[in-house]
Amino acid sequence: MDKITVTGLPWAPPFAQGLVRDLRVRWALEEAGLPYEVRLIDGGERSSHEYRQKHPFGMVPAFEADGRWLFESGAIVHHIAADSEALMPPDRHDRANTVAWMFAALNTVDPPIQNLFAMDLQHGEEQWAKLRRPAAVDAVKVRLGALSAWLDGRDYLVDRFTAADVLMTTVLKFLRHTALVTEFPVLDAYVKRCEARPAFQKALRDQMADYARGAPVAA
Amino acid sequence: MDKITVTGLPWAPPFAQGLVRDLRVRWALEEAGLPYEVRLIDGGERSSHEYRQKHPFGMVPAFEADGRWLFESGAIVHHIAADSEALMPPDRHDRANTVAWMFAALNTVDPPIQNLFAMDLQHGEEQWAKLRRPAAVDAVKVRLGALSAWLDGRDYLVDRFTAADVLMTTVLKFLRHTALVTEFPVLDAYVKRCEARPAFQKALRDQMADYARGAPVAA
Repeated sequence: MDKITVTGLPWAPPFAQGLVRDLRVRWALEEAGLPYEVRLIDGGERSSHEYRQKHPFGMVPAFEADGRWLFESGAIVHHIAADSEALMPPDRHDRANTVAWMFAALNTVDPPIQNLFAMDLQHGEEQWAKLRRPAAVDAVKVRLGALSAWLDGRDYLVDRFTAADVLMTTVLKFLRHTALVTEFPVLDAYVKRCEARPAFQKALRDQMADYARGAPVAA
Repeated sequence: MDKITVTGLPWAPPFAQGLVRDLRVRWALEEAGLPYEVRLIDGGERSSHEYRQKHPFGMVPAFEADGRWLFESGAIVHHIAADSEALMPPDRHDRANTVAWMFAALNTVDPPIQNLFAMDLQHGEEQWAKLRRPAAVDAVKVRLGALSAWLDGRDYLVDRFTAADVLMTTVLKFLRHTALVTEFPVLDAYVKRCEARPAFQKALRDQMADYARGAPVAA
């Protein structure tokens, strides 16, 4: 891939810092050793007709390589991984398993976690959230329990570090305001193992540096 | 692929019939022209240690080809599509766009739809669901509006019918108990266009026939 650009946010409130999904793409690019630029875009640009041609839902990240655009963080990570042995094993069956865990991270593990995150961080004072929270926690625990059983005795989802671990780790990060991950020692060790990688550390540092530069001026 | 097996449920209650996710895999296999067998498995088998080695979350569908197992409906459809021009265009950029829309269907469009579905069909009488429903409907409409804008003037998500349409159509089907899709004429026409395909019709007919055979004996 020639020239790569990733879109991100100029700033995010503290509860969202480290969770915005361009982090996944930055991390994957660091693992793959590909140079890239980040373009920070504000809400006005995200809802523009021009940007919607690149990202139909008006979100970040969008990804440009060789003049072609791509959207959806899972798909962008998949696109990077397809050409990088650092993120996707060469064996056909291992590749299929990596893709299985990529979809599992985003369609089986992520949804109950996003529900709990929204309840706690965006709707915590609302009556429906208070009524629903115990069941939402249980739904998360069901998924974490199954994931923990799978990872018991394994370092990564598929034998070695892959793009699936990039997605799963960044999904589990949405629980950092709770003790749910640490209640499962296997998951806690897994997240720490993945987040200790230099590529993750660099991606996070760069994203946080962008927010520091973009922070609103205090009133 | 040599011998293919897909796991499904022996029966589902009427509100879930036509929505269980082995339908996606059956549809993709019909489009690809690949013969397959369906193995119907009950709750006891789904929670068994042996099945969890095939599907770590104990759900359907799981997929076996050439003696290797795969899980997660999006990943199984991706695996079938990767080798079938009926589901995935040959051009590299078109393939990346197809994968983008596959992830978008399952991680951007599906989550708010699943929330509304669960509220209406599984928790309709609960106070939290009554309080939260208006916002849940709004969240669905935001996604449907963006999707409708994209599909306006297009027959399919990516120029021609692909695996992404299999996923998107089966995601939108979870709104059949509402008028939300029909409120967007572009989406209504899109779903009808996809569901009119003989491969979808055959997959649905076969799934329903399995449930008819597996129906509990009336008391």
